[in-house]
Order: sequence, then C-alpha cells, then structure tokens
Amino acid sequence: IGEKNNDSLLVLLEEVHYADIAEVIEELYTEEAIYLIRLLESDVTSEVIAELDEDVREKILRELSSKEIAEEIDELDTDDAADIISELSENQKEEVISHLEDIEHAKEIVELLRYDEDTAGGLMAKELVKVNENWNVLTCVKEMRSQAEEVTRVHSIYVVDDNNKLKGRLSLKDLLTTSTKTAIKDVLIKNVDAVNVNEKAEDVARIMQKYDLEAIPVVDEIGHLVGRITIDDIVDVIKEEAEKDYQMAAGLVDDVEADDSIFELTKARLPWLVLGLFGGLGSVFIMEGYENIMSDPRYGKLFFFTPLIAAMAGNVGVQSSAIVVQGLANDIIKGSLLSRLFKEVSLSLISGTVLGLLVMLFGVIMPSMMDTLLSFTVAISMLCVIIVAALIGTFVPIILDKRGIDPAIATGPFITTSNDIFGIFLFFYIAKLILGF
Amino acid sequence: IGEKNNDSLLVLLEEVHYADIAEVIEELYTEEAIYLIRLLESDVTSEVIAELDEDVREKILRELSSKEIAEEIDELDTDDAADIISELSENQKEEVISHLEDIEHAKEIVELLRYDEDTAGGLMAKELVKVNENWNVLTCVKEMRSQAEEVTRVHSIYVVDDNNKLKGRLSLKDLLTTSTKTAIKDVLIKNVDAVNVNEKAEDVARIMQKYDLEAIPVVDEIGHLVGRITIDDIVDVIKEEAEKDYQMAAGLVDDVEADDSIFELTKARLPWLVLGLFGGLGSVFIMEGYENIMSDPRYGKLFFFTPLIAAMAGNVGVQSSAIVVQGLANDIIKGSLLSRLFKEVSLSLISGTVLGLLVMLFGVIMPSMMDTLLSFTVAISMLCVIIVAALIGTFVPIILDKRGIDPAIATGPFITTSNDIFGIFLFFYIAKLILGF
Repeated sequence: IGEKNNDSLLVLLEEVHYADIAEVIEELYTEEAIYLIRLLESDVTSEVIAELDEDVREKILRELSSKEIAEEIDELDTDDAADIISELSENQKEEVISHLEDIEHAKEIVELLRYDEDTAGGLMAKELVKVNENWNVLTCVKEMRSQAEEVTRVHSIYVVDDNNKLKGRLSLKDLLTTSTKTAIKDVLIKNVDAVNVNEKAEDVARIMQKYDLEAIPVVDEIGHLVGRITIDDIVDVIKEEAEKDYQMAAGLVDDVEADDSIFELTKARLPWLVLGLFGGLGSVFIMEGYENIMSDPRYGKLFFFTPLIAAMAGNVGVQSSAIVVQGLANDIIKGSLLSRLFKEVSLSLISGTVLGLLVMLFGVIMPSMMDTLLSFTVAISMLCVIIVAALIGTFVPIILDKRGIDPAIATGPFITTSNDIFGIFLFFYIAKLILGF
Repeated sequence: IGEKNNDSLLVLLEEVHYADIAEVIEELYTEEAIYLIRLLESDVTSEVIAELDEDVREKILRELSSKEIAEEIDELDTDDAADIISELSENQKEEVISHLEDIEHAKEIVELLRYDEDTAGGLMAKELVKVNENWNVLTCVKEMRSQAEEVTRVHSIYVVDDNNKLKGRLSLKDLLTTSTKTAIKDVLIKNVDAVNVNEKAEDVARIMQKYDLEAIPVVDEIGHLVGRITIDDIVDVIKEEAEKDYQMAAGLVDDVEADDSIFELTKARLPWLVLGLFGGLGSVFIMEGYENIMSDPRYGKLFFFTPLIAAMAGNVGVQSSAIVVQGLANDIIKGSLLSRLFKEVSLSLISGTVLGLLVMLFGVIMPSMMDTLLSFTVAISMLCVIIVAALIGTFVPIILDKRGIDPAIATGPFITTSNDIFGIFLFFYIAKLILGF
C-alpha cells in the first residue's frame, strides 16, 4: 500500500475510525507512518496520535517538526494535548507551545502541564460546558450551543457563580423538560460530587466507580471549577492500575508488553530474578549448616523435601498477599489486626492440617519413600511453615500500606523469595526438634 | 442508631447517596439492614439493593417477601432488575415477576433474563432513547422528552427505521444546534458502532475502550435495536476481568475477598495448594533417584541448590506467562510462533547468562560453599532450566488460548508447580552429564 498511491489511500482510510488507523500505524515502519500522518488531515491524525502507544508516538514525534506537532496539538482536547506535550523534551515543549495558534488553548494546556500525571489535575480536561447560576434556561441553552462546539461530548452542564465557584449541575433531561424562562438557580442539582485537583488518580477512579459517574468536575482548593474528568480516562486508570498490580505480582518491574524489545523485557524481568537468586543462595547457606546429617540414611531424605516446603511457603504467601492487596485496593480491609491474625492462623491451621494428612497418607501408601516418622516430621513442619508464610503474606502488605508504600510490591517474587528462606529455615529447625539430630 | 428512632434516622439518611447507604448496610446485621430497607423509600432502597455485594444481597432478599422484592424491582432499570432476579431461586423468580406492576417493564426484564450473563445481552438495559428516521427535529425532541423520563442518563439518541432496525445515532450537540424542521434522516450519524446480543462481555469492553464509547447500542442477528450498554457496566466488567486474572495468578480458585468467611477462603485456596503438594512430592520422587550420590561429598551439595533451581524456574515461568496472558487479553500477541520462540530463547539466554555468572562469582567469593566445578554445573543447568521454564510459561498459555481455554489458568501455581518439577528433573540430569556420576 505504501507506494505513494495517495488518492486510493485517502479513499481507503476516509471511513476508518482513528483508533483503527492508530492500530495500522503501530504495525508500520516509522517512515511509512509519518508518510501516512502527513497525508491525512490533521483533525484525524491528531486523534490517531493521541491513540498511539507511547513508544510508537515517541518515535513518530521525533521525526515531526515542532510546527507540525503544534498543528496536531491544536486539534486535540486539552487533556490529550497536555499528555502528548509532557512526553516531549524540555526544548521541544517550549517550541511546540510557541507554535500553537489558539492562544486560549495554549494557556489551558500550559496550566494542565503543571499538575502531576497521577492526580485529578493531570487527568482533567479544560473543555466543559458551564453556565452561570443567574442565567435563565434560554440564555443557558444559547450559551451552551456555542460552548458545545468545543466540547467533544457533553456530559454534564456545570453551574458556577460569578466567581467561577462550582454551585451544582444541570441535567440535560431537566433542560429539555423545563420552560425556557426558569432561572438556572431553581433547577440546578446542588449535591454535585467534585474532586480536588490534587486528589490521587486512583481515588478519583474509586469515587467515579462507586457513584457510577460518567464525568466529575474538578475544583481547586477554594472551590473554583477548573476542569472535568470523563469516565474514558478513568477506564484507562483502572486498567493501568490492574495491570501494574498484576505485573508486580508476576515479578515484572517496568510496564512491559509482549511486543517490547528484548532489552526492555530483560530490564523488566532480571531484577526480580536476581533477588530470587540471592534468596536461593540464602537457602543453600541454611542447608550447609545441616550438611552433617546428609549422609545419615535416617535424616538425609529431608533434603528431598526442600522444594516441596519452599513451594508451599511461596504459594501460601502469594495467596495471602494477593487477597490482602486486593482488599486494600478495594478498601475492605477492616477490623483489628488481631482479628485478621486470628483469621489467618485458623485458615492456615485448616489448610495445613489437610495438607499434612495428605503427606502422611502418602507416607503410608509409599513406605519406601518415607517412613512414618519422616512423614510426620514433614507434615508438622509444613504446617508451621504454612502458618508463618500466611502471616508474612498478610502482614507485610498491611505494614507497607500503613507506611504509605504500595503494598503490591510485596506480592509475587518478593514474598516467594522471603518465604522460601523462612520456610527452609523453619523446616530444618523443626525437623531437628522432632528428630533430635 | 438502630433503636427504632425512625424520624432521626430518616433525616440522617435523606441526603446520603445510595452507594454510601449500601456501604453502611453491608456493615450491619441482616435484621438491622432489613429494618432500614423497610424504613426507607423504595426508590432509594432499590438502588441500594442493586449496589450491595452479592452475598449481602442474597441474605437480605431471603428475608423479604416476593411482593416487597417486586416493589424494589419496579423502581430499577431493566439491567439491574434482571441481575437481581437472576440471583433468586426458580420459584421466587416467578413469584416476583408476577408481582411486578409495570407489565411492560416486566416483559423487558423477562427478555433480558434469557441472555447469558457474560454476553452483551446480559449487560444491556432496555432503557434507551430512540427516534424514527422519518421524524423531524421537533417531533424528535418532543418524543425524547417523554422517553427521557424513563432513562436515567441519556447517552445517545438512536435512530431506527419503521422496522426498528438501527440506522444511526443523533448527537445531542447536533440537536441543540439544528433547526427544528430538519428531518432526522439528514442529521443522523450513520456510522454507529453496535454489538450483537451474543457478543462476549469482554469483547464489548474491548470495543468500547478502543473507541472511547460511553454507550453502545445492542442489536439482534438481523439488526433490530434491542438495548444499550453503558460504560459504568463495562467498568465493572473490566475490573472483574482484571481481578479474576490476578486471583488466578495468585492461586485462588473462587472470587474471594479478604472479608469472606474462613470456609470460603479455604475452599478458594486449598485446591492449588494440593496441586503444589503433589508437585513437591513429584520432586521428592525425582530426587530419590539420585539418593546414591547424596553421601558423596563431591556431589551431595547439589541437593542444596534444589530450592534455588525451583525458585528460578517458577519465577521465570510466572513472568513469561504473565506477559503472554496480558498480551492475549489486549490482543497484541502477533507474529509467528517461531519469532516468539526465538525471542523467548534470546531473552532467557541473556537472563540465564547474567544469573549464571553471578552464581560463579559467588563460587569464587565463597569457595567453601561451592568449588568451581560445582558452581559451573549449577550455572549451566540453571541456564537450561530458565530457557525451558520461559518456553513453558510462554507456550502453555498460547496453546490453551488457541483451544479456547482461558489462558489465565496457566499462570501462578500451575506454572510454578510444573516448572518446579521440570526444573529439578533437568537440574539433576544436566549435573549428571557434566559431573558424570
């Protein structure tokens, strides 16, 4: 397709949604992609660029001039525009902003650039429909018409006073069904949820989800309406949040995807593997201390069970931490630490007993593999290991969370590695107590 | 509060959002909750009930009569109503439906009950605003006013022909800015995304996310408009999907939460632990085969490294499978299997070499722990184990996905357990080749 057959390309892409064009561009080489972007009209390409994967976008923007970038930015809503500009280098940022044609738009984008990406301010757009509480429905509808031109989707109509303080909102439904002379003051809905510009993105997501909101107004410290956040941005926050937790649990450091380069993937994977390696060497160190019992036929078999113990410790730890981390994320970890302690111990006692009985059953079926004393030893120490593993898995995330650290880092390799070491240490220690070597 | 002081309770709760009341109710005993629900008006309580956690709702509905439930249902949108009714027992379902006052509403709910929960049909609501393509803007606005009374939020106005076939949609913006005499035919936006009633919920979520839609119309096989899905339901789908994958990766069977009962938590956790136990016993079995080298001071130390090998195999497997599962979920696993094979092997070679060198470095620093030959053996076999673990982690999910099985089950304990066994088997096998025992 990419052999400069412009007309047929244009016809082909005319009816295609920008999200689909973005997908096509992600598959192309950078040169071809730029060729295509220069070919299409800028109201389409701007949306395409906003839709692109960050890595691809970076490559493409590097090849475009500041003026070209500014033309794309001019077409975008302030929130997408600010996101793209924030990815540029400092120099390029200034250049692009100076090339923006719409001064008002440029001012709003610069304002948005001030906010941290992970706050309500970083998510919001300046495009919104607002009306003054002192107007009547007719003036309001007129004003809305002109404002609506700039806003891609009208969610709510916000009502402010003369000082731009948020007073409430109007429902489109009420506007459609009220006489044109009614004062806005009399139809506005007063109880409107709003978030502060500095609210964390996750919390905004939680609020919008809880109250099933599709847009939420953003106010500054003194209640001035400064922007609005729409649900499609929140969907992205929720997805990213979930993916981040999932990747942490899987032992991946950066935000990686299957089609990233080998170098990026290695960078994301290696750190936790090195941690795992040190953990494993720690276990070697512990077992060295018991080297003398190795040649004893009565006790040597204990060494066969170390992967089993490590696996149980790891699995139990991951389960416990996952439940706690999800509970913390959904804000349902309530009650005292003591009751949680009691619950985890009871849980582990039940699971540990069932699993211990299974081990002993196995010993009865295959006596050549382990005699009764050995299977009893394994069962008891496994039970203890499970209890300790569950407690570590539960309380490490809770403690991290209390200290303001993301508890998700305590899932996955972190918990498996530390539980491996604790597990093996405990296993030999208890076996020593029981068997008395 | 719950001492029958009705008036003050009502005043207290009057201004409170139903989502907050639902949270309060989840904290109460069932009796108190029912007392509160009977006290409040049914337009509030119906929303509260729809918002409740399934377990709590079940308890409460069990105590209410079919007539009372029907009163709540009458107040709800068809999608929430159908969700609640589908949780009832067969008998109660019929009773509740027969008590519904609004016959039209009841018919729609019954229609929705036919669809599978995880399809577009199961998610959609019947409430929507639709207009005929042959009307003009004025008739249209009039009709919309009456229809809008029933619809909580107007997202889009759908245009149908005389046979109720979906023809397009209207934007509220266009309606606000067009002369009242214009025919709907001339202002409708033709390219409207729609999904089939049988489309899977996940796919609907993907489409709505990709195109940033806030509502999508649902059509039957021959293009008749039968309902619409709104983004707030999709947010729930996305969250559930992410939580399910996370829980699978953590080795939890059911959808559990931190505040579930000990019995439920055990039921969710034990199955994977039993699997882990069998895996561990499998490793014991493999090591038994090498019992004779245990008392040999040159080789016995190999047994110290089994938890290390198992941990590396497990971690690498989890990382690989997590990347693939996320890639499959986001539909970005492209390219041939051969190129993926090549990528995984290269990746593992790099990681494995770095980790192997670290092991050998460790051997140099602490020669008492392992001599050069031993550290070389561990390093080489670890490298092989990492490669195999990465391949298993990558291709098991891909194969499962190709066979239509949810690849997420191949993450977490499943991959760690199988990789533990493979890893230990390979470790001893390669050590045997190198050391020649």
